[in-house]
Amino acid sequence: MVSETEALRVADYARLDIARRDRTGVPEVVFAQAKTVAQTLRLLAELRAGDPEAPALATRCPDEVLAAAPTAFGTDPVRVDEVARTVTVGPLPPPRGRVGVLTAGTCDLPVARECLATLAALGVGATLVDDVGVAGIGRLFAQLPRLHDVDCALVVAGMDGALPSVVAGLLRAPVVGVPTSVGYGVASGGVTALGSMLSACAPGLTVVNIDNGFGAAVHAAKVINAVHGD
Amino acid sequence: MVSETEALRVADYARLDIARRDRTGVPEVVFAQAKTVAQTLRLLAELRAGDPEAPALATRCPDEVLAAAPTAFGTDPVRVDEVARTVTVGPLPPPRGRVGVLTAGTCDLPVARECLATLAALGVGATLVDDVGVAGIGRLFAQLPRLHDVDCALVVAGMDGALPSVVAGLLRAPVVGVPTSVGYGVASGGVTALGSMLSACAPGLTVVNIDNGFGAAVHAAKVINAVHGD
Amino acid sequence: MVSETEALRVADYARLDIARRDRTGVPEVVFAQAKTVAQTLRLLAELRAGDPEAPALATRCPDEVLAAAPTAFGTDPVRVDEVARTVTVGPLPPPRGRVGVLTAGTCDLPVARECLATLAALGVGATLVDDVGVAGIGRLFAQLPRLHDVDCALVVAGMDGALPSVVAGLLRAPVVGVPTSVGYGVASGGVTALGSMLSACAPGLTVVNIDNGFGAAVHAAKVINAVHGD
Amino acid sequence: MVSETEALRVADYARLDIARRDRTGVPEVVFAQAKTVAQTLRLLAELRAGDPEAPALATRCPDEVLAAAPTAFGTDPVRVDEVARTVTVGPLPPPRGRVGVLTAGTCDLPVARECLATLAALGVGATLVDDVGVAGIGRLFAQLPRLHDVDCALVVAGMDGALPSVVAGLLRAPVVGVPTSVGYGVASGGVTALGSMLSACAPGLTVVNIDNGFGAAVHAAKVINAVHGD
Amino acid sequence: MVSETEALRVADYARLDIARRDRTGVPEVVFAQAKTVAQTLRLLAELRAGDPEAPALATRCPDEVLAAAPTAFGTDPVRVDEVARTVTVGPLPPPRGRVGVLTAGTCDLPVARECLATLAALGVGATLVDDVGVAGIGRLFAQLPRLHDVDCALVVAGMDGALPSVVAGLLRAPVVGVPTSVGYGVASGGVTALGSMLSACAPGLTVVNIDNGFGAAVHAAKVINAVHGD
Amino acid sequence: MVSETEALRVADYARLDIARRDRTGVPEVVFAQAKTVAQTLRLLAELRAGDPEAPALATRCPDEVLAAAPTAFGTDPVRVDEVARTVTVGPLPPPRGRVGVLTAGTCDLPVARECLATLAALGVGATLVDDVGVAGIGRLFAQLPRLHDVDCALVVAGMDGALPSVVAGLLRAPVVGVPTSVGYGVASGGVTALGSMLSACAPGLTVVNIDNGFGAAVHAAKVINAVHGD
Amino acid sequence: MVSETEALRVADYARLDIARRDRTGVPEVVFAQAKTVAQTLRLLAELRAGDPEAPALATRCPDEVLAAAPTAFGTDPVRVDEVARTVTVGPLPPPRGRVGVLTAGTCDLPVARECLATLAALGVGATLVDDVGVAGIGRLFAQLPRLHDVDCALVVAGMDGALPSVVAGLLRAPVVGVPTSVGYGVASGGVTALGSMLSACAPGLTVVNIDNGFGAAVHAAKVINAVHGD
Amino acid sequence: MVSETEALRVADYARLDIARRDRTGVPEVVFAQAKTVAQTLRLLAELRAGDPEAPALATRCPDEVLAAAPTAFGTDPVRVDEVARTVTVGPLPPPRGRVGVLTAGTCDLPVARECLATLAALGVGATLVDDVGVAGIGRLFAQLPRLHDVDCALVVAGMDGALPSVVAGLLRAPVVGVPTSVGYGVASGGVTALGSMLSACAPGLTVVNIDNGFGAAVHAAKVINAVHGD
Repeated sequence: MVSETEALRVADYARLDIARRDRTGVPEVVFAQAKTVAQTLRLLAELRAGDPEAPALATRCPDEVLAAAPTAFGTDPVRVDEVARTVTVGPLPPPRGRVGVLTAGTCDLPVARECLATLAALGVGATLVDDVGVAGIGRLFAQLPRLHDVDCALVVAGMDGALPSVVAGLLRAPVVGVPTSVGYGVASGGVTALGSMLSACAPGLTVVNIDNGFGAAVHAAKVINAVHGD
Repeated sequence: MVSETEALRVADYARLDIARRDRTGVPEVVFAQAKTVAQTLRLLAELRAGDPEAPALATRCPDEVLAAAPTAFGTDPVRVDEVARTVTVGPLPPPRGRVGVLTAGTCDLPVARECLATLAALGVGATLVDDVGVAGIGRLFAQLPRLHDVDCALVVAGMDGALPSVVAGLLRAPVVGVPTSVGYGVASGGVTALGSMLSACAPGLTVVNIDNGFGAAVHAAKVINAVHGD
Repeated sequence: MVSETEALRVADYARLDIARRDRTGVPEVVFAQAKTVAQTLRLLAELRAGDPEAPALATRCPDEVLAAAPTAFGTDPVRVDEVARTVTVGPLPPPRGRVGVLTAGTCDLPVARECLATLAALGVGATLVDDVGVAGIGRLFAQLPRLHDVDCALVVAGMDGALPSVVAGLLRAPVVGVPTSVGYGVASGGVTALGSMLSACAPGLTVVNIDNGFGAAVHAAKVINAVHGD
Repeated sequence: MVSETEALRVADYARLDIARRDRTGVPEVVFAQAKTVAQTLRLLAELRAGDPEAPALATRCPDEVLAAAPTAFGTDPVRVDEVARTVTVGPLPPPRGRVGVLTAGTCDLPVARECLATLAALGVGATLVDDVGVAGIGRLFAQLPRLHDVDCALVVAGMDGALPSVVAGLLRAPVVGVPTSVGYGVASGGVTALGSMLSACAPGLTVVNIDNGFGAAVHAAKVINAVHGD
Repeated sequence: MVSETEALRVADYARLDIARRDRTGVPEVVFAQAKTVAQTLRLLAELRAGDPEAPALATRCPDEVLAAAPTAFGTDPVRVDEVARTVTVGPLPPPRGRVGVLTAGTCDLPVARECLATLAALGVGATLVDDVGVAGIGRLFAQLPRLHDVDCALVVAGMDGALPSVVAGLLRAPVVGVPTSVGYGVASGGVTALGSMLSACAPGLTVVNIDNGFGAAVHAAKVINAVHGD
Repeated sequence: MVSETEALRVADYARLDIARRDRTGVPEVVFAQAKTVAQTLRLLAELRAGDPEAPALATRCPDEVLAAAPTAFGTDPVRVDEVARTVTVGPLPPPRGRVGVLTAGTCDLPVARECLATLAALGVGATLVDDVGVAGIGRLFAQLPRLHDVDCALVVAGMDGALPSVVAGLLRAPVVGVPTSVGYGVASGGVTALGSMLSACAPGLTVVNIDNGFGAAVHAAKVINAVHGD
Repeated sequence: MVSETEALRVADYARLDIARRDRTGVPEVVFAQAKTVAQTLRLLAELRAGDPEAPALATRCPDEVLAAAPTAFGTDPVRVDEVARTVTVGPLPPPRGRVGVLTAGTCDLPVARECLATLAALGVGATLVDDVGVAGIGRLFAQLPRLHDVDCALVVAGMDGALPSVVAGLLRAPVVGVPTSVGYGVASGGVTALGSMLSACAPGLTVVNIDNGFGAAVHAAKVINAVHGD
Repeated sequence: MVSETEALRVADYARLDIARRDRTGVPEVVFAQAKTVAQTLRLLAELRAGDPEAPALATRCPDEVLAAAPTAFGTDPVRVDEVARTVTVGPLPPPRGRVGVLTAGTCDLPVARECLATLAALGVGATLVDDVGVAGIGRLFAQLPRLHDVDCALVVAGMDGALPSVVAGLLRAPVVGVPTSVGYGVASGGVTALGSMLSACAPGLTVVNIDNGFGAAVHAAKVINAVHGD
């Protein structure tokens, strides 16, 4: 069940876990933040070659990767989202299911778009409902009907992180809170938003690390896989 | 303006600031937590004697003070609130103005009642709206009309501390958040609720220390003094 | 959609959110920790009366509630779990779906049993796999086949909180980490286990507050509702 | 009372809460820190167009916004405060009431000027008393007569944050402490000043987030509205 | 200069540093908190025997030590301070110099009295000025003349810890701040008072650990030794 | 290499990792802190039965276990250390190698004795050098010759945790720092001692969790195994 | 005693506390970190003009101030220390007394030189003993005779901050620890060194904020004033 | 045993502890982070001259040192590792023993290479096993045979820091965890990885400061010295 022959050695800096999609339903992805441009592009190419049925995804790409990606993979289609800082190589799978992605404010958009890019790469449908934070809570109620039948909801919020708690008390779907590092003073770095979501009164809310839109989207994709098969 | 002759020496453990009501509009109060029963009762008596026009108030009273107070001040009327842990000695002044006191859950009630006891001692009217936390936000909207014309609102909440932010976005009155030490895990001790309120997206929300219902009530009383004179 | 008429006023200490099951698929539950015995028993009775089709559940019950519960509800069946500190009043619904509940060590059992009691009250099937922490990782691999087809997995761990990361890299189902307050020194209170789970390398792991077995079970129940209907 | 029709959709990055002034007495404001120059300027123009009776305000403006603002709004008068980093578009309302703004040291001036710019935009009068920190406390006593009849006082201080406590013990008006991020070592980022103000011995002091001069001014404006009508 | 022969082996649980008074001017003292009653009493006797010219001092004594001490040392005079939790065995040396000990509130008295007991045991004169916190700052100014010619000042304060900063800006003598663990919420345990003193604007203020009245007194005694010889 | 058949199922609360000694050279041990008396005694008996060549050890035993242990294992010899809170069942192996165990003060002794009891159970020789903290550093230098040829040194210290750094700069042997939870104020719980040891200037010092004498001793035993074979 | 007429208004950004030297024995100093070059130079000139008998000192000067200072004050002698980042304008007073300044490592030198520059400006003699950290403790013992008769010692150390504790156990003079922000990991920013010094076992050690060489030197100067008159 | 004559004074910025190799078996090393290029190069030359039998090592070298080193030492061989940021001057000693160095991910490689460079300079053999983190744990099991007979293992990991705990439960050799500052959100700066390793369930794991590959390697070298003599 856990066999090394399913790992792929790339140059001398990585050991790709190519069996991950078989084990978990979600393929390995390139975390580009602490890698060189050449490393990220090569790993994307190896992932793409190793699993031709799925697109290869890189997250947290620095500017240089975003600039180089469009011409780096021959005829393979490449999607670059400069706000999300993601690169997707290969055709997107047809979307199944539907995930609601909500944001509290404009500043939370980059993380929400990392959710959207990840869901798209994993073949999951999504609806974005942005800028519905609790300071003007009427904006949320007007959008609620759009979220009526989602399979899962990801709620992205910084500052006081209060939106996920409100949403979890209103929806049937499982809800994941995604704290963002937006804010200043005690909100700096997102720790307050994270604590607030973990302490939410509304039961059933689960949480990911600060700014981890990717991780939240993978959780949602696993829910979609459970609901719609994979 | 700042003169020692206005300080009253009590035995050898206190120097009562009897001029405080003249300077600030709010008299000195006994913080009973780290004092002996005898010290608290004596200080209440001294305060009462020093300013016959106002009742004397003690907060954070241990059980022994709550038990001893009713018979300790002769014919002076005594009010004991066992939930708030307050003792008030002397007739209450007639209430002026109106302050809304809200709680997110049942567990926040002791702190809310410390607000109410303090407001009563300071001659301020109040309305309690309890158990309207954001996990079932419909409960808040049904109560909003009762808060329409308050001069100030105090919102008491633990756990994620999300309620004050929602309220501050809905009311004309100045709003003060009072975090409570209710909760467990990352919510233990109230630090998460405090951080959440300080980071609230709704502008104009100010905050006091965790469980400090007394301090919030004094702020509200000063607002009432500004609105209705003192 | 959010209407106060769906709230039930109990004495003067609570405002039960009886519409929650309609909105979210999960009924309101009594958090007994900061309530009196009488309050908890009365709220259980009110919940049970308000929604005869579902059992009423109380979590974090002090000893007095655990002792009083068996004889407090007439002929209604009562289940008391002294390890989980839960009380369930009313017949359990037939279980649908299957959730895996894993523990790293013997000390994590109380939180795992809070998961199990909650899942049972919500009509969800469960499998417990206990004492499979990473210090002797062979124990986990031997149990993996039992988790092959779960719809969701809840992994309960204190100390270094390393088990959920390993599990999330091995299963297709969505995985929720539940940090526990087991441990001493830097592990005291569970903050290290929480941080470790939020930082897990395995994607898709979401997390709840320390010792919050109840919340994790509600998330799982919402996944089950999405998979099997509700 | 909370209706979406009162929200204004701007391009696809914001949902302006234009009904906020009706609900709370204070209009929405642009938080420019995490926005592009074009976004901030457009949102200012939309706010100005949506509510012709009030000026539009942007806070925490980067240099580029401060430079572009003077020529970006046609004939509408524009006030730029480079120390406060604010831009105000439209004629100021006539000032009502009076708020005292105090600083402990020269370094606290930028935050104090954010208070002043916000108060001016909201039509509130103000008096600045600067550089009266407790290390040379004689400076404060000499200025006290200037604060005698303010409706509210905002006290801005970094480092040990001791000034608001002293002021709250001397004035009749409600006092709000504004901690600043001035300082080094344990004072870095303003957390010590914040904690000190929350722990102040003088009752009635409330506090806002570190460097949040804007929020403190909004609280003061709500007090002024309560005192003088709005 | 550092020789083991100057260490005294007591039973098998301690190695008394009897040469400390020669090296540093201040003898070793018994920290009774984590010791048994028998250990503390024996160590006091050994210290007393090892250095007949100085009294032996134990700090942080539990109730049992305070009760047993008066009859445990034969004819040697014993001073027990139940508020300070100190025991002093042997005649006090004649006092030299003068140290001012100030407190912000009644709750700070136990720590102030630990200062006083230590100073007395070390042969240093002292003046107590209590309950002069900044919330009613006139009380301090009235007492200032009593501190005019002290050689050193120790300022004991909890909560916001603001008093030492004010005092350090008013006196010629070196000032040491002693934070106390008095308070609740963010002031719990004294960390806020400690941070506030370390960040004080008034230059020259130094600080000791929370509740460490003993350590502050030793610093003052070393200053006295420098001024008056030893 | 990692096989479940090597795990022993005990009742339904534990899965003993009986293959651990084969894998790592150190057998599984009972952590008694969060277990019932019956569980701890049964697990000791099972461990003893499962590996007759090694004694069974329980650490962090509550009083009840210490009291019950001497008569709970028939004729098997039982060693109880009430200071260390350990129980050892079965004959001790002959000691190999030598480990130096140092303490800074008397209060660190319980943790040091947990080291000693663990080393004894693992068949490792040890020398205790106690009460040699840096405040009277001459005491350390006098004892240094006793540590000349140890294979490994464990240095136990609370408060400022300074001793391990000094020792690591003086010895050839690998040194492990063991911070203790001794102290008050910023030293409470041992976090300062831990941080100090991790930041030590002397290279090669490694550290274990606060009060984890057991873990340090296991590391030392593995060094002894490497030096002397096992 | 505290009179505003002793404050000097400079432009509209400062209120110099020119009476501070009379009150405390130490004149006001310019903290240049958060000021413009023009502000710092003007304040130095005003201080120099206001008190011709003492030099004017600025600390934490940015490069621009260090570069501009030598030619900014006409014929007045100017001392610039680029390592300490200080500027001193005017002739130095003749030194009285002697202060020992010790460092643990080369990286602590800038803070030690801020001590030296401040002491020189205040007319206090000093001896520097550098690079004597505890990892090679023999270096300290060799230098001890140079510190035999100092009136006060300032011990500057980062990382584990262990040196001040050792020194305080060896000297008769009062000792002040100055933690520095040198280090990485848990030592980052100096918080570990600060905590270590506050927890030091050696009694009488007092501490200042991280990197606050200036404050430590002022404390020493006040001791010198007490010893030698001022 | 601790003699100053063994210290070497370099210019006026350092006091090299040249006797350290005799005392501890490991020579002094240059920590280049906070030094100028000239200082680092001169100290390397002095160390090399002072101990011709061992190479001189500098760690945490900035780019300028890495660039200047190859031509700075005449004919002495120089090794520069740009990933590890180390410079080694002089011939490497022949390797004795074998240390396993493991990494969880690609981002941990710089710290692992600091381990390798240090081990090489100290004459210790090493085997690198990289990118075997727990998210794909099969990769570790496939590499285990390569670690079968190491004398010591250093496990480098960031994020959740879970790998060292797994490894310590599988190997006979003593294991040291090296947390890295890789990660974001709650993993930022490596504090979560550090806490996780300190809390590891697997006994005997010791830990060094975040990113301190050098310190871990010195500990391993001392183990090697104990095993193979030095």
